[in-house]
Amino acid sequence: MSSSIEAEPGTSPDSGYFARVGVVQLAAQLRAGRVSPLDLVEIALGEAARTQPVLNAFVTLDEAGARAAAGRAAQELAAGTDRGPLHGVPVAIKDVIDVQGLPTTAGSRHLAGNIARQDADCVKRLRAAGAIVVGKTATHEFANGPTGDRSAGGPTRNPYSTSRMAGGSSSGSAAAVAAGIVPLALGTDTGGSVRVPAACCGVVGLKPTHGAVSVQGVIPLAPSFDTVGPIARTAADCHLLWTALSDGPSAHPPIATPRIGWLPPGSLFPTTPEITGLARDFAGDLIAGEVSVPDAKELRDAYQIMQGSEAYAVHAERLAAAPELYGEEVRDRLRAGGEVRGWEYVRALDLRDRVRPAVAELFRRYGFLALPTIPLSPPPLDSRAEPIGGEQVDVRAALLALTSPWSVLGLPAVSVPAGLLDGLPAGLQLVGPPGSERQLLSLAEHLQTPNL
Amino acid sequence: MSSSIEAEPGTSPDSGYFARVGVVQLAAQLRAGRVSPLDLVEIALGEAARTQPVLNAFVTLDEAGARAAAGRAAQELAAGTDRGPLHGVPVAIKDVIDVQGLPTTAGSRHLAGNIARQDADCVKRLRAAGAIVVGKTATHEFANGPTGDRSAGGPTRNPYSTSRMAGGSSSGSAAAVAAGIVPLALGTDTGGSVRVPAACCGVVGLKPTHGAVSVQGVIPLAPSFDTVGPIARTAADCHLLWTALSDGPSAHPPIATPRIGWLPPGSLFPTTPEITGLARDFAGDLIAGEVSVPDAKELRDAYQIMQGSEAYAVHAERLAAAPELYGEEVRDRLRAGGEVRGWEYVRALDLRDRVRPAVAELFRRYGFLALPTIPLSPPPLDSRAEPIGGEQVDVRAALLALTSPWSVLGLPAVSVPAGLLDGLPAGLQLVGPPGSERQLLSLAEHLQTPNL
Repeated sequence: MSSSIEAEPGTSPDSGYFARVGVVQLAAQLRAGRVSPLDLVEIALGEAARTQPVLNAFVTLDEAGARAAAGRAAQELAAGTDRGPLHGVPVAIKDVIDVQGLPTTAGSRHLAGNIARQDADCVKRLRAAGAIVVGKTATHEFANGPTGDRSAGGPTRNPYSTSRMAGGSSSGSAAAVAAGIVPLALGTDTGGSVRVPAACCGVVGLKPTHGAVSVQGVIPLAPSFDTVGPIARTAADCHLLWTALSDGPSAHPPIATPRIGWLPPGSLFPTTPEITGLARDFAGDLIAGEVSVPDAKELRDAYQIMQGSEAYAVHAERLAAAPELYGEEVRDRLRAGGEVRGWEYVRALDLRDRVRPAVAELFRRYGFLALPTIPLSPPPLDSRAEPIGGEQVDVRAALLALTSPWSVLGLPAVSVPAGLLDGLPAGLQLVGPPGSERQLLSLAEHLQTPNL
Repeated sequence: MSSSIEAEPGTSPDSGYFARVGVVQLAAQLRAGRVSPLDLVEIALGEAARTQPVLNAFVTLDEAGARAAAGRAAQELAAGTDRGPLHGVPVAIKDVIDVQGLPTTAGSRHLAGNIARQDADCVKRLRAAGAIVVGKTATHEFANGPTGDRSAGGPTRNPYSTSRMAGGSSSGSAAAVAAGIVPLALGTDTGGSVRVPAACCGVVGLKPTHGAVSVQGVIPLAPSFDTVGPIARTAADCHLLWTALSDGPSAHPPIATPRIGWLPPGSLFPTTPEITGLARDFAGDLIAGEVSVPDAKELRDAYQIMQGSEAYAVHAERLAAAPELYGEEVRDRLRAGGEVRGWEYVRALDLRDRVRPAVAELFRRYGFLALPTIPLSPPPLDSRAEPIGGEQVDVRAALLALTSPWSVLGLPAVSVPAGLLDGLPAGLQLVGPPGSERQLLSLAEHLQTPNL
């Protein structure tokens, strides 16, 4: 059956097999016997190996484990045990998430050879749904950075332009999905680490409500914000992965007439006007009005304060024992976080508690908020300052500026591709009230469905 | 009717009128017409004025307001409107709690002339129960200290020995009750500020479950821990004041056979053996076994970290604008709190979350914990180092060592007089699970009831 598969050269976003076929279609093909789980695994492993020298999306491929799992999946399907639409479908897992028997390195030399004894809770869920883990994807060192270009294994490159960042920290997961290496991947999002690379790589990424998905078995970054989130090429596929990851049923809740409030991103950070235009146009008629979020910029500061304090609390002993095993940039950032004062942390908590009711009130009026995911196109690798509207901005601050406020509030948010600017992806971010993941994904599906 | 009242010279613990008559007795006398609310107010005002030069328990007396309220209370009682056992009974309010029309100074020069526009929630409750506010009691500056000897209005002295601390920060409330100036008073307790002066002054003081009583209208110290608590001469009277302060009914819950776990205080801090002995003997046969609390000493550190950070967050702008208006000791302490790091605060929160289930498990086995309230006798005014068992200890650390761990956990605790050591009070502290205030007070009443 693998004769039907074409491997194309190159690493462009439509080069990989899974760029041309969605999960529903795969599920149908698997059940019709037109393709086997092993076929899909071999395709994914082949695409991963082929693109690795350029994209560097993976840190570990589990050929043997994936093939064995594919065999079991095929047996189950043949025997009439159907685990649903992910049964036999390859997935990739960000390398901060434990997969039994594989190293979890978090892109850090500290964790070289750190073999996971068991699957993280989220991986258990995917396996229960029949998904097949083909490997571990690259992450910014300790998931602590939105650029994806600081990692023990080197930078991940953007399939749309290999001189540019894939975004981070879930750089490998987003790049692997964008390049069609796998149809689905897991990332983690603390201040934007699923949404930012999804926007950079032109794929769909969901950051769930804080606490909605277990983070057991996941290397922590800042526990107040850490989440595990799905990445896929389409909102429909992302929805299927979310269903496997979460407890709820897969039925789409009805969205009668969703009202979206548009948040002008300039209220948070300087934003490239063309990106604002693409995002707003993509949301289109669903925008019912413009909104403002009180203390939105202060929420960004609160994110830095809380993330810095919590990340240092995670890393203090490692920083003392073996500072040389960190990359310089991440080490400096962790140390800066260690200087944040307790009273600043207290005020950040206070701010969060103060803003939450105001944003809840916004959601009563509009249902959802929309704004760009990131305020600029994916920057060149290693760039740390870029112009936006004639102003030089800090790249890290820019990449997190539009996503981190919702992390502080614990809200779910999805990034959906909104078009291309000079050939590079732009993302629309939809933010919803706690627990609204399905509605957000349905809304994203709606936006991705061509008008008939 | 005031002819039946004798004013005695001196400030000793049994010198005041209200040292010789409990609230239930007062309530009966009021209803029998043997004494009027105005009589009681005049007694309290007279005792307060008489003892003020020595004890310095008050910062404001509200003669006019108290007399007017007494008149209304008398009219209501005469007209058959009975608000319950506190109707017509004088109370004193710690000067961090707003009483409409009176200054709230918190013992600070920053707040000189700070007239409260309305009553704090807790004061509203007491007024609804018919209690009559006679004045505001002295507090350690900004409630930030357990010694009660740093305050814009000078130190409060211990009725048992006027060369000694009354304890703090609710120094005036405890001293006023101990000296019989008023039968009841409100304090606030963040790390021990009701329990410590109660123990120093030989009265009963309850720190409620965090969040059980509104702190609206109360000058904050460290909001994660701040509580408003009742102080009285007996547990029975304290129970009546608690009933007015809280939402629940006044019926005592039945305590079949309370089992108390004894926590040897040495596991927390060096403790004077005779005080340990007095406290343990007072708890007597109710002690069912010895317990240990995991990370108990670390909870003390967590208190310092969280209190320091939160207090600085409250005071940062004042410290910048007018540092000279603070007393030196409190200013230095606040500034030290401002140096605490965010990651230390994060770890303190983590510790709290980790210890809570272990202590909840202890409560399933024992119902209540018991230990001394403070590990030494009330120290001399201004002393900052005292010997305990041959070791010099820091007085502030000592006074908070046995109370602050329960503040971190948000638990209710009551201090009950356990006897005298060299003429100075020793306190037994009973700690219960969240919401167990009534059981704690019933237990204290039981211990205070002489065996028949």
